[in-house]
Amino acid sequence: MSYKAAMGEDYKADCPPNNPAPAGDSGPDATEAEEDFVDPWTVQTSSAKGVDYDKLIVRFGSSKIDKELINRIERATGQRPHRFLRRGIFFSHRDMNQVLDAYENKKPFYLYTGRGPSSEAMHVGHLIPFIFTKWLQDVFNVPLVIQMTDDEKYLWKDLTLDQAHGYAVENAKDIIACGFDINKTFIFSDLDYMGMSPGFYRNVVKIQKHVTFNQVKGIFGFTDSDCIGKISFPAIQAAPSFSNSFPQIFGDKTDVQCLIPCAIDQDPYFRMTRDVAPRIGYPKPALLHSTFFPALQGAQTKMSASDPNSSIFLTDTAKQIKTKGNCDVDVSFMYLTFFLEDDNKLEQIRKDYTSGAMLTGELKKELVEVLQPLIAEHQARRKEVTEEIVKEFMTPRKLSYDFQ
Amino acid sequence: MSYKAAMGEDYKADCPPNNPAPAGDSGPDATEAEEDFVDPWTVQTSSAKGVDYDKLIVRFGSSKIDKELINRIERATGQRPHRFLRRGIFFSHRDMNQVLDAYENKKPFYLYTGRGPSSEAMHVGHLIPFIFTKWLQDVFNVPLVIQMTDDEKYLWKDLTLDQAHGYAVENAKDIIACGFDINKTFIFSDLDYMGMSPGFYRNVVKIQKHVTFNQVKGIFGFTDSDCIGKISFPAIQAAPSFSNSFPQIFGDKTDVQCLIPCAIDQDPYFRMTRDVAPRIGYPKPALLHSTFFPALQGAQTKMSASDPNSSIFLTDTAKQIKTKGNCDVDVSFMYLTFFLEDDNKLEQIRKDYTSGAMLTGELKKELVEVLQPLIAEHQARRKEVTEEIVKEFMTPRKLSYDFQ
Repeated sequence: MSYKAAMGEDYKADCPPNNPAPAGDSGPDATEAEEDFVDPWTVQTSSAKGVDYDKLIVRFGSSKIDKELINRIERATGQRPHRFLRRGIFFSHRDMNQVLDAYENKKPFYLYTGRGPSSEAMHVGHLIPFIFTKWLQDVFNVPLVIQMTDDEKYLWKDLTLDQAHGYAVENAKDIIACGFDINKTFIFSDLDYMGMSPGFYRNVVKIQKHVTFNQVKGIFGFTDSDCIGKISFPAIQAAPSFSNSFPQIFGDKTDVQCLIPCAIDQDPYFRMTRDVAPRIGYPKPALLHSTFFPALQGAQTKMSASDPNSSIFLTDTAKQIKTKGNCDVDVSFMYLTFFLEDDNKLEQIRKDYTSGAMLTGELKKELVEVLQPLIAEHQARRKEVTEEIVKEFMTPRKLSYDFQ
Repeated sequence: MSYKAAMGEDYKADCPPNNPAPAGDSGPDATEAEEDFVDPWTVQTSSAKGVDYDKLIVRFGSSKIDKELINRIERATGQRPHRFLRRGIFFSHRDMNQVLDAYENKKPFYLYTGRGPSSEAMHVGHLIPFIFTKWLQDVFNVPLVIQMTDDEKYLWKDLTLDQAHGYAVENAKDIIACGFDINKTFIFSDLDYMGMSPGFYRNVVKIQKHVTFNQVKGIFGFTDSDCIGKISFPAIQAAPSFSNSFPQIFGDKTDVQCLIPCAIDQDPYFRMTRDVAPRIGYPKPALLHSTFFPALQGAQTKMSASDPNSSIFLTDTAKQIKTKGNCDVDVSFMYLTFFLEDDNKLEQIRKDYTSGAMLTGELKKELVEVLQPLIAEHQARRKEVTEEIVKEFMTPRKLSYDFQ
């Protein structure tokens, strides 16, 4: 192969190419030339089509959610698979078959997901894991813990402790508005729960004893100039993967299987968790990974809560939605795959739009008509979330579930 | 100066000397050739006379406790200074004059000391900070918090969480037996208190945000292979220096001055704490530093709780004390300076022993006669420390004190 074919540019003496292929073994997380970069803080792709998720599965070492697994979930639950499964929005997993094995043998599991409360403003993209987690809670009838990492946001952002904690409580209201069962759901702020639980800190220290700085440097790219809070934080996101972090729910049981639905950028935390688990005598958590929700401007990056034009916010009015709905046509169609429940209608739109029978304006109108009631209904449900309801969800307590 | 005079050996080509003097500025903590090495885990001196404490004051940047300061403490409290002050056993301080300024103006302060519970076995050397802290509590009439760093011992040693926590509770009994006022003293295990306090974790995260890995590497010598628990631990030893870590005692007051009596090897933690304090809006803690208690084998190192022959343990019988009392004669005299209250008698012994009028056997007999009742009385008081009393000391609660 010629130099140009390999490097994409002509050879110049003493002037290395911009993106040389890494020499030797580069490890699973290394960014290779032309490859997407995905970690909890950065999602970058050079492709206009967005992140290559099949490649990500190979690089992260997870498994594809294939038709067979989706059929198995349908058989186990007796429910039609959620549109996020039907349409490949949750596309990757770790050990989901093990969870189903256990479930079919009447063995318990619990769900764990979370959110980093960096501001009061949440957008529709933030709801993806929660919409799906609510469905999982409903069809499997299992308890759920939701971690609000206000400590993380305090450590990473220019926020006070009280601001970060305030965002956690505000965001909890939007999460509750997704319809979680109050009898089966515990939402917690790290800043609060650490000071309320006899089991949580013990698991945090256990994990912290079994992970070195070298390891978090490799996984998260931390440097010597990072504060010691960031360096030790991954243990705090890992700890809810182990059931005895919640003695009020699981007593001293250490072996209740955990299933984590999350966007794939959170996987590094749980690769670390799964590495540590057997060394401290706990089962590895299983995972279900989603793709990223595209920004209105296009599919190349995750959306940002700090850019009001990058997405549809949960506080947007019908009028704002209509204006923002006038976005890139491909993005319009992609949004419909997330939110239009009717498979036949979606397929018809796809055909008509591809063939030219449907005009761009009509496609965008379809999207606006899906989003307006969705956001309005969310806003109505959120209004009904009183301070008392938030307090109840966020109080450590027994949950009701059917485990033997 | 010749090469040999400077380096202690003849010049050999291409073969550097074993202990070259460091090049350039070596920072306050660098071990220089011939200098003592002191950090929380290692105390090393090449001198048979033990650590050079005057040099340590210069290197650590603390201040000597001089006659003037001791007189001031006497005037402020109206009490004769403790023998540990009269005899230079507490020899160094930071900001003690500020504590006295505040005290004389009826401004409150509190005491903070601690122990790393690495085993059940405590020796007389471990009691030094507690004997002195009890005296400070009595003469100043102030509240006291005592941190049992069972999380630290779990992280550093081959212990389970339950073992480390068990040692914390056992050691608390020996500490309580020193005579602390139950109405003015809170003893806590980190593993317990982190999960019980709304204020403690918040301060830990605050400190962790303001200290980098580079900083703890410089102060404590951590490396990339250290676990992230060790790396972030210094924040946990720092947090009790700030009064709002104890809302049950101080409410949300952030400005109650803290005074920390401890052995000088703990100073690195509090240099870090004092560096962080103004950046998070808190007052710097003041310190009183003690020398190390010599091992029976000689003054070159700290004693070790894991070597039964290195010291007098709190569980030793009168017979064991008698046997161990047959130690190095200089150590015998040094022990008397710690435990013989009578200044005149101590001076007489010093004179007689130096002149040869007192025989070695007699000196050792004096020591045994001081230690036997001291240990027996300690054992009697410890017997009276019931589980209920331990529980009371270790329960977060209001303390009674006279602050305005």
